[in-house]
This record gives sequence, C-alpha cells and structure tokens, in this order.
Amino acid sequence: MEDQWRAYVDEQVNVPPSAEGVLHGLTYAVKDVFNIKGYVSGAGNPDWKRTHPIPSKSHAKAIELLMHEGATLKGTTHTDELMYSLNGENYYFGTPINPKVPERIPGGSSSGSAVAVAAGLVDFALGTDTGGSVRIPSSYCGIYGFRPTHGVVPIEGVIPLAKSFDTVGWMTQTMERLVQVGRVLIRGGSKDHVIKRIIIPEDVLELIDLEFRQITNEKIDQIKEHVDKVESVRLASGGLGEWLETFRVLQGAEIWETHGAWIEKYNPTFGPGIRERFEWTKSITEAEVQGALEKQKDIQKRMQDILQDDGVVIMPTAPSSAPMLNTDGEALDSFRQRLLRMTSIAGLSGLPQVTLPLVNKDGMPIGISIIANRKSDLGLLAWTEQILNKIEKVRGG
Amino acid sequence: MEDQWRAYVDEQVNVPPSAEGVLHGLTYAVKDVFNIKGYVSGAGNPDWKRTHPIPSKSHAKAIELLMHEGATLKGTTHTDELMYSLNGENYYFGTPINPKVPERIPGGSSSGSAVAVAAGLVDFALGTDTGGSVRIPSSYCGIYGFRPTHGVVPIEGVIPLAKSFDTVGWMTQTMERLVQVGRVLIRGGSKDHVIKRIIIPEDVLELIDLEFRQITNEKIDQIKEHVDKVESVRLASGGLGEWLETFRVLQGAEIWETHGAWIEKYNPTFGPGIRERFEWTKSITEAEVQGALEKQKDIQKRMQDILQDDGVVIMPTAPSSAPMLNTDGEALDSFRQRLLRMTSIAGLSGLPQVTLPLVNKDGMPIGISIIANRKSDLGLLAWTEQILNKIEKVRGG
Repeated sequence: MEDQWRAYVDEQVNVPPSAEGVLHGLTYAVKDVFNIKGYVSGAGNPDWKRTHPIPSKSHAKAIELLMHEGATLKGTTHTDELMYSLNGENYYFGTPINPKVPERIPGGSSSGSAVAVAAGLVDFALGTDTGGSVRIPSSYCGIYGFRPTHGVVPIEGVIPLAKSFDTVGWMTQTMERLVQVGRVLIRGGSKDHVIKRIIIPEDVLELIDLEFRQITNEKIDQIKEHVDKVESVRLASGGLGEWLETFRVLQGAEIWETHGAWIEKYNPTFGPGIRERFEWTKSITEAEVQGALEKQKDIQKRMQDILQDDGVVIMPTAPSSAPMLNTDGEALDSFRQRLLRMTSIAGLSGLPQVTLPLVNKDGMPIGISIIANRKSDLGLLAWTEQILNKIEKVRGG
Repeated sequence: MEDQWRAYVDEQVNVPPSAEGVLHGLTYAVKDVFNIKGYVSGAGNPDWKRTHPIPSKSHAKAIELLMHEGATLKGTTHTDELMYSLNGENYYFGTPINPKVPERIPGGSSSGSAVAVAAGLVDFALGTDTGGSVRIPSSYCGIYGFRPTHGVVPIEGVIPLAKSFDTVGWMTQTMERLVQVGRVLIRGGSKDHVIKRIIIPEDVLELIDLEFRQITNEKIDQIKEHVDKVESVRLASGGLGEWLETFRVLQGAEIWETHGAWIEKYNPTFGPGIRERFEWTKSITEAEVQGALEKQKDIQKRMQDILQDDGVVIMPTAPSSAPMLNTDGEALDSFRQRLLRMTSIAGLSGLPQVTLPLVNKDGMPIGISIIANRKSDLGLLAWTEQILNKIEKVRGG
C-alpha cells in the first residue's frame, strides 16, 4: 500500500525510541543520508553504496535526539544522487510520487521524505537542506518544511554535500508538529525573538510565475495585519543573479572538496545533469572562490542590515509549483537558475527559513517562506505558529 | 459586430488608397498615435486629446506609403496611455478583448491593433514599438508581429515616446502578409542577408515560465534543422537585469524630455501605474543617463559580436502567455521586470525582431522571436518566411 508513493528506500529500517518523551507515539522517516546503526546509507547513488559498504557504528546525532524523545524511525527515504539536485527524479531509483500532484515532480533532494509526509506515511521526516533540498520538496508537495540556522541542529552522522551550507531540516503536515519537532532538534538560539517588521523582497517577487502571485499576495496581506511595520526592499542591488553565482561557486567548491577524492578514486556513474554539475565543481578556481567569499560577506551584511533582530523576509519558496514529470533536462536547468536565486538567499547567510503550504485556485501547491535572522529558529517557529493561529481565528470568526 | 472586440477608437476614420499597388484590396488599422489628415489622435489619454485639439495637416509617412500601394485604412485602434505600458488595460478607455484568450489581457501598448488583427477585422495593423509595444501584444494575441531596425521605417507623423527607441511596427495573421507589408514600409537595409547561425540565449530562456519551455524548444529544434550552426550563449555577463536597467533609464529620460513640458504645463491625469512611471522619469539624473549610455555601448558591441552578419538570436518573445485580466498592479509591475529583460534586448541596439505565434497544449498563445543584426530587416523577414515554409513542408510530407 505504501509502496505506491515510492518514498522509501528501505522500510525495514526500524529504530525504536530509547525513552518516552515529547514525541512519544510519533513515527518518522529519514533521508537515506543519515547514519543508522548497522545500516549502510546509499545517498541516492548505487556507486556510493557499493564503495561505502561498512554499516554505521552509531546513529546520526539528530536521530538520537528524536529517539530520546520517544519517536520511532520507520525507514529511509529516497534522495537525489548525493543530494545535488532540486528535482527528485533519481536516474537510478526512480521518482517518488508527489501525492498532491502526481503528474508533477516531488522536488528534491529530500524527495522521499517530502512524499512520506505528504502521503501521511509518517508524522514527520528528516531531510537535509544545502541549497533548498528541504524547502523545495516541501513547496512542491504542499507541506510544512524547515531549514534551520546553519549549525543549530546537529549534523554529525549525516553524509555531507557542502559543509558550510549543509543543514538538517524536517517536514510535517501541520505547523504545530513542525514546532514540536523543532523543540527537540534545535540546540541553541533564542526563543525570545520579537518580530515586529515584515520585509517584502521586490526582486524575489519578480521571479515568480504570475499565476502564483495572487495566492502569495493574499497570504502576505493576511500576515501583514499582525505586525507593526511592512517594508518593501530590493535585496540585491546588483541583481539576485550575483547572489546565485556566489552561492553556486562556494557550494560547488565545497562539494568538490568533500567528494572530489571519492569521485576521482571510484569514477562513479552519475545520472544526467548530476554528472555535469559534479564535473563543473572540479573546474572552480581558487580565484573564483576568493571572489565569491568577498561577495558572500557583502550579502551577509546586507541580510543582517535588512533583518536585524526584529524583521522577517516573507516570499514565495519557489518560482512556481512543481514542474511536470519528465520535463527535459535543459528546461529544468534553466528553471533551476530562478529557483536557486530564491533558495540561496537563506543559504548564503545560514539563515533559518520556514515554508508553509499554499494552494492556488487550480489546486497547485506552492510554498510561502518566512526567513529570520540567524539563531532565531525557535522564535521564528513560535511566531509563525502564532500568526497562523491568528489568521485562522480571523477566518473562522 | 466588430464592437465586441473593443479594438477601435474610431472606426469612422477611413483613408482610401491613393494608387493601386502591391497591397491592393487590403485593409488595415493604425494605433491612435499616427497622424491622419483632418483627425486628432488621442494617444490613449483624454487629456492628450483635450490639449492637442488641432487636426493633423497630413498623414503619417507610414500611412502614405501604404496608401500609395493600394491599402485602405479602416480606423484607429486603442493604445495604452502615451504608449507607456505593455498591458493594454487602459484606465480611461477599457481593455480591447484578446480574441484568442478573452479572459486574459491583450498586451500593449498597441493593444487595439493586435486585437483588430487577431479578430480578423483588418488584414494588418500598424503599431509602435519602443519597449515591446508591438511584440508583446502580438505574442499575447497569437499573431505575427515585426519591430524593424530603429530608423528604417519612417516615423514622421507619429506621436513619440522615446525617440532613440521608437519604431513603427506591424502585425498580421500570416507570415506572408508580414513580409508583404514589410516590403512597402522598410526603407533601406539589405535583402541579401545570409543567415547561417542561430544563437540560443540561455539567460533569456531562464526567464520564461517552464510550461512554455517545451513548445519553444520544439520550434527551436525545427528551425535548427535548417541552419549550419547552433550556438548557446549567455548574452549578459552581468545579468539581463543590468540591460533592463540601462534601457529603463535611457527610455525614461527620453520620455521626460519628450513629454515633460506637456505634463508640467497641463498636469494630465494618468491612470494607475502610468502616472507613477511618468513621475519616475522626471527623477532620472544626468549622471544616471551618462552611466546608462556607457553601458548601452557595451551592450551594442556585445550584440554586434554575437550576431555579426550571419547570426540570429532565437528566443521566446515573452516570459509567459498573457496575464489574466484585472491582475493587480503590483503583480503586473513585477512581471514587467521579466518582460522588459526580454524586450529591451532588441531595443537597446535598435535591432529588428520578428515574433511568430505558437500555442501550447492548453491553447495559450506565446510568441517566439527571431532577432537579427541592424538593417537586415528584409533579409530577416525573407529568411523567416523561408524557414517556416520548409518546416511546413517537412510536417506536411
């Protein structure tokens, strides 16, 4: 029955709780990049599993945190190869089926985790988010998703992609559950983050398909009513293309640093698209990296100035709902450029971002995101839950 | 009967041919910015007509050329106010109805001319194109449209918007007719333009809605089969946003130069959106203009290097099909930024651009454009007609 969603790599993996706790009775799944004692993670590529045959000696730290609070791990879920895609169409292992719009891609790289949650197979799921890999499948599958501040959720025991951007994120069907899991996983940061300003990034809004503008505008308008101040800004004076390029170069260089030796040693066979991107990471020069690091500093300062301690940026999570299944690779690569302009904003500054599901009049899911300053994770989640409750109350009343 | 399309400002305007010729028997309409002897043009704004009450003493030069070749002018058509919009929703005079997709805007500013052609009310229609005002409504209404090289079609007797960008363009229901009218209107340039290379601008393809990618790819693939060489390039190393900004500043400064004195004297009431744009044109500084002129030179050199004598750029005309009627102004303004990134490419270099109608699987029209080097207008039109005939033949056989 659950097979129909193709969410799981291995449903036999089962890790019971080690204690009772606040997640008692809840089930979850993890992307197949988390260490599980006695198990070999596959990272979405057959050559990875073949060349990393030794079972993990311990669980990833995030799994331990969840075990200690009573949650039961039910299985591992599909990922794009080495987490290096936002589509969820794995050349070797197929495509998990998007439960909300089955004719469209689920998004990736945490594709199976998003599908497992959207199909109701588990109460929540863990993914990883380097360049959008939790946020994008959450947006496409119509669920809640969270990418934490870089470093506040333990990443020990997770196969890396690009270390200064990698985060452990999670997905749920409700905001309440998103917060509940966050209270267990988020280690550090402040709960007392008072949000007074919402910031609308005009240059991000210019990127989205017009048909999703109305639904995002409506949600922004609802949120506006509950804050003191609304500001419109352009984030990037030189264009978000420059931010994307900065992200691509830094992420790419780190990817090669992380996986280059393995790739050169084993010459793994990657599927189309993934292969070309890995090849490109090898060609990045030190001068490009230095230039990008300088730009990253400017970008981080810009986001700091905009957000300060009391602001959140509100914007769509993606430029549109999920692309159709089997869209040709070139077209997806073009689309990826718009997508990364949006997802790299949080990535470049290590910012927390929550994505909430909206549905347009044609039934197409798209996420709307709230980004806050670093280490405000619990405050951001609490504020978002509060705002959604207020909106619900207004609409119910 | 014809009223239903709201294409015409004045259907009583009738200018018979002055001779027999190659356009014998054909009817046409002109945007309400062309001088017609004894008539007062309105330029889409009631205050314009009120403050310019003196009837024209002679026809616009383009009308004379058509008269001499046997065409009959049937009326004047609606325009956005002072041609300064790409939407076709005129606050004072309403919105001509897009015959292909009546729930969507017709595009502008040559809105009525596009509708008159798409509805079959005339054999062809004249518009003006400064920033896309022929190309965009042609794309939205599913017809053929042409913006000539700046200066090769006489613009005498046409209300200006921004003189170094203004062109007289035309729209038709067939490629054959587009060429036929071109042979009459285009004065100068070469017919012997041999096109050997097609150039696909990757950074433009990144701007379009994914749902239109397949149909444009298919058409590009069909065209590819009939040329020696296909190249993929990124036009703008610093991003097309920079090109758009260069265009906006130069166009805006010229608009204020052209219409500022009139605006300050009469304080005309413009509709929403238009007003703000005119106000902004007043604020442009000389330093901004000088900076933009420098950038324009670089852009012109870049396009020259790319196109040379034997190349054409092929790209979608717009990022998507027409927006829905009554989309809110902010959303249209955001969308306009993507739109102008595409239309300003030809504008900044004064290049000729032909747009051909495609229809996606949902019946939505979108144009695909071919841009060639300056003064190759007749060659571009002839080559395009030839290629379409070849494609037709392949498909027919």
